Amino acid sequence: MSIIEQNSNDVKLPASQKVYVETNGMRVPFREISLSPSREMDGTLSENAPVRVYDTSGPWTDTNSRHDVRDGLPALRRDWIVGRGDVEEYEGRKVLPQDNGYLTKGAEDIARIKDNGALEEFPGLKRAPLRAKPGHCVTQMHYARKGIITPEMEYVAMRENLGRSADTLVGSSERSDRSSLKHQHKGESFGASIPSFVTPEFVRDEVARGRAIIPNNINHPESEPMIIGRNFLVKINANIGNSAVASSIEEEVEKMRWSTLWGADTVMDLSTGKNIHATREWILRNSPVPIGTVPIYQALEKVNGKAEDLTWEIYRDTLIEQAEQGVDYFTIHAGVRLPYIPLTAKRTTGIVSRGGSIMAKWCLAHHEESFLYTRFREICEIMRTYDVAFSLGDGLRPGSIADANDEAQFAELDTLGELTKIAWEMDCQTMIEGPGHVPMHLIKENMDKQLEVCGEAPFYTLGPLTTDIAPGYDHITSGIGAAMIGWFGTAMLCYVTPKEHLGLPNKQDVKEGVITYKLAAHAADLAKGHPGAQYRDNALSKARFEFRWEDQFNLGLDPEKAKEFHDETLPAEGAKLAHFCSMCGPHFCSMKITQDVRDYANAQNIEAEKALAVGMSEKAREFVATGSEIYHGPDGATGGEHH
Amino acid sequence: MSIIEQNSNDVKLPASQKVYVETNGMRVPFREISLSPSREMDGTLSENAPVRVYDTSGPWTDTNSRHDVRDGLPALRRDWIVGRGDVEEYEGRKVLPQDNGYLTKGAEDIARIKDNGALEEFPGLKRAPLRAKPGHCVTQMHYARKGIITPEMEYVAMRENLGRSADTLVGSSERSDRSSLKHQHKGESFGASIPSFVTPEFVRDEVARGRAIIPNNINHPESEPMIIGRNFLVKINANIGNSAVASSIEEEVEKMRWSTLWGADTVMDLSTGKNIHATREWILRNSPVPIGTVPIYQALEKVNGKAEDLTWEIYRDTLIEQAEQGVDYFTIHAGVRLPYIPLTAKRTTGIVSRGGSIMAKWCLAHHEESFLYTRFREICEIMRTYDVAFSLGDGLRPGSIADANDEAQFAELDTLGELTKIAWEMDCQTMIEGPGHVPMHLIKENMDKQLEVCGEAPFYTLGPLTTDIAPGYDHITSGIGAAMIGWFGTAMLCYVTPKEHLGLPNKQDVKEGVITYKLAAHAADLAKGHPGAQYRDNALSKARFEFRWEDQFNLGLDPEKAKEFHDETLPAEGAKLAHFCSMCGPHFCSMKITQDVRDYANAQNIEAEKALAVGMSEKAREFVATGSEIYHGPDGATGGEHH
Repeated sequence: MSIIEQNSNDVKLPASQKVYVETNGMRVPFREISLSPSREMDGTLSENAPVRVYDTSGPWTDTNSRHDVRDGLPALRRDWIVGRGDVEEYEGRKVLPQDNGYLTKGAEDIARIKDNGALEEFPGLKRAPLRAKPGHCVTQMHYARKGIITPEMEYVAMRENLGRSADTLVGSSERSDRSSLKHQHKGESFGASIPSFVTPEFVRDEVARGRAIIPNNINHPESEPMIIGRNFLVKINANIGNSAVASSIEEEVEKMRWSTLWGADTVMDLSTGKNIHATREWILRNSPVPIGTVPIYQALEKVNGKAEDLTWEIYRDTLIEQAEQGVDYFTIHAGVRLPYIPLTAKRTTGIVSRGGSIMAKWCLAHHEESFLYTRFREICEIMRTYDVAFSLGDGLRPGSIADANDEAQFAELDTLGELTKIAWEMDCQTMIEGPGHVPMHLIKENMDKQLEVCGEAPFYTLGPLTTDIAPGYDHITSGIGAAMIGWFGTAMLCYVTPKEHLGLPNKQDVKEGVITYKLAAHAADLAKGHPGAQYRDNALSKARFEFRWEDQFNLGLDPEKAKEFHDETLPAEGAKLAHFCSMCGPHFCSMKITQDVRDYANAQNIEAEKALAVGMSEKAREFVATGSEIYHGPDGATGGEHH
Repeated sequence: MSIIEQNSNDVKLPASQKVYVETNGMRVPFREISLSPSREMDGTLSENAPVRVYDTSGPWTDTNSRHDVRDGLPALRRDWIVGRGDVEEYEGRKVLPQDNGYLTKGAEDIARIKDNGALEEFPGLKRAPLRAKPGHCVTQMHYARKGIITPEMEYVAMRENLGRSADTLVGSSERSDRSSLKHQHKGESFGASIPSFVTPEFVRDEVARGRAIIPNNINHPESEPMIIGRNFLVKINANIGNSAVASSIEEEVEKMRWSTLWGADTVMDLSTGKNIHATREWILRNSPVPIGTVPIYQALEKVNGKAEDLTWEIYRDTLIEQAEQGVDYFTIHAGVRLPYIPLTAKRTTGIVSRGGSIMAKWCLAHHEESFLYTRFREICEIMRTYDVAFSLGDGLRPGSIADANDEAQFAELDTLGELTKIAWEMDCQTMIEGPGHVPMHLIKENMDKQLEVCGEAPFYTLGPLTTDIAPGYDHITSGIGAAMIGWFGTAMLCYVTPKEHLGLPNKQDVKEGVITYKLAAHAADLAKGHPGAQYRDNALSKARFEFRWEDQFNLGLDPEKAKEFHDETLPAEGAKLAHFCSMCGPHFCSMKITQDVRDYANAQNIEAEKALAVGMSEKAREFVATGSEIYHGPDGATGGEHH
């Protein structure tokens, strides 16, 4: 059975186990991939240390602690939150019928609409919501600025270091021995300040100055803290969400778990259909990663889809509803100002952001400035009461290559910079959303302007797509742009699935999107020179060179697919132990030939004189000086490539 | 039935027809995609001109001229070649039993090996081979340097211009109206000299100075001329080829046609198994694109796979054998010099190029410099006799991120530069192969060094892969690097399929690789500011904005997949006429809302006073000054994106 058809509950990534590193009474989770031994030249075996990787999948993949979606996950952070003494329980807002959406009724004439009926409410423990006590602010930024290192900060420091201690650092950049697993290229970080070892104090400092955020609403204690910032590992977000037209709630909960299994660092619930409140409750109670939403979507449901009927009161009520549930960050399109709307008139694709177009419609209908802009300080008050982070939406982002980097887009960005300063005044954690569709040569301008205008607040971009001509492949057109902008400094990449522009992603599409973005984020970490980033590449390449096929599969982002592809050509179990690759066969393989070259050189022990006699260059002298063996490293062969 | 399961003979890309533009008695082929009309605001329909795209598929997709693989394609260039009066027919080399490979016998113990038996020889017309008359050189470079504009040069000029005449140019870079189909961003070409209109004289000049090649062996008159150079559209190559372990010859011929259907500009036949000569004959006689090979592969077959038994005589015989068949370019790893081999000793993945490792083994076995290097001028003599282009192989390219840009790689590149000068002395067309596995921040160094060292000879790279951790997704890890290096100046991108490192690509993998590389090459053209490149993006985005779903599919690189993805969510025919997208449904869609915004603004005809009263900014005044309408362009809505 393919892994795809399984429930993520049943999936265990091969050769992997959950490990915890303890720090200050906290247990920080990682995944460890165990490897088979290498065969040395003399026939002896030497062990390969397991490779530890960042793990976003939460308790679901801990085989020692089974959980049920009907109970939800344990409240990991509850004691930390309550222990600070600055929050209070209260009765909270009553859930209203319209919270679960009205609009679906009108859509029943659409082909294939599913009537899910009312969803069973989440049956697990219902806590009373928490909020800041009067006069208090409970954001991580607030604590950071007061000089407090929170447990959340300690947790993310350990997580970013992959549980290493400072004295076991990998990734020194100037090693000449490229066969060392610790070899790492010196990167180009374009002015980022990436430390060789992340301390809790460094985390605190980055959060205090607004260069990083730790999105974790006090009402989502199930989440495992993570950090989003230019000086940390590049993160990725996966979007899920039901809509009026397709997909069910159960599917969405499963998609959340599925996407975190494959590596999503945060998940956005973009539901717009029925049961919107109930769906979100199921997702939050079961999510080990921060959950983001676009509250204007639900607010629009509450007014039957008529943008002009939106009011500040309905919107405010929705923010509180979602903050009480535990949403960790809100996309708020407060930069879509009335005067900017006409700037989109000459665009090829107008306004493509759903939130942006809702607000544009409202502004025109009322001949008024957006209430998201005019009420921004009131929004900040809500955000700081629950520690919901801002994700300031780019409602005027380009929807086509033609519209990239235009006046409308950059006018909005200026406003987002202005709003960032206000949010920071009020100790609200803030990141900035970015495009969209941008040809490669205009990508860096986006990053540079954002850094300048928004004071280095974390950038969170959708792609960008680098061409419009490949519908069905927009995970790739955008993966190109995502890797580049991640390198330039974007802190989190919002994934794009192959279904972008065409339809709703299914489970397979979600996985394809997540893996594509994981590899793009990792390519960015490598290019930035993030300490230790190259270790996994080195370990996989070493396994490839040594024909340790299973290790090669298991060290990859998608072991199942790698194995499946290999087995299509050479299905026999024995083939995975064979010292040749499936592309070339046993006699022709470049891997085998390289191995022969090594064996030959070793056997002959070519001496200095001979090398000089044939060498004709200084290089030959160097060769001899280093011992005349071709491969000094472990038993080696090459990487299975053509021509 | 999926398009994938069909024979490429039966596939017709939707809404597409082959058109020919006549020039000087030649007919240059293109594909024209017809579009449906746009509905204007007043309800009238306005036609959309068909979009013309570059067409690599040859006569196979011309519904007015059916062809049979048993006859081969017409000899398009035969008269041009013979007409120059500098070639002669001769009897040619006899085909020997060992030309079809010996080695397969030894592989029969491998799981799943297929015994194909002896292949039927190609039954179509057998021409006697042509060669240059004594004392003549028949390369396009030779003609170019003599000031001769050949029909091949005229043909490629027309092709690069997409059949446009100079007075109908698209792509002026400074248009402020982004809704114009002719809008194009000013690119960043890093010092390339891309003309706004390609003249035959420009082609001649580029070929003369070695900055571009037109690979077309005089014995492959079936091919449609194309050009590879930094100042032309970025091209892509697809690799096919049987091996000892898997795939049959019929499959390989079909893969060639399949890959050119989806856009491969050249195809490399990397066969290493049985029937190697016969397979190549079938491929060449049916290929409308240039065919490349790595002759050392076949030479190795002739010595039973023992690299040390290779001789100059066997290699030379193989070059002539393949030149007589019509191979258009040869990968020759003449830069793998003996003194460089020890430089790979401390690598993570040694020598991963198959050709490179064969030659490394030979050099060590004989304690001698490579005969490819020492006999290079003799090789040039053969190349200029048939106009086979050099593709100087990078036998020491890195096989892992760790090994990128190391001493071995750049030492070889220096030698390739030296050999380029010799080839040019002898009027041989030459391109240079490049890596491989390279983290993003080290990609540009490869391009810059290549331009400098090789005098701007076209660069032809494999990817590069930007991380090693995603086996199964290496079309994407490498698509990122390919788009970037294409932007920086690489002339042709060698595709990587999802099966890279794991197995032999099947038809679906070939298509996935080709489409990924087409979009990467196009992203590079956009970023370079290639004239007119943005037209197709603009046309597709306009279709998307106007809910012309079928046009959106048809303008994409893979119409079938786009339609299939759309239909998964909204399968009804009617849905493709609907003015909403499948992601949001009829009431919530940002496209629809944007359309409402436009309608509203139009209906209200907001006046200057009102706008000023609410606008609070200069922008409002501009808005009013430009006529108060939100969208002046054609009937518009937006692009179907989330948050």
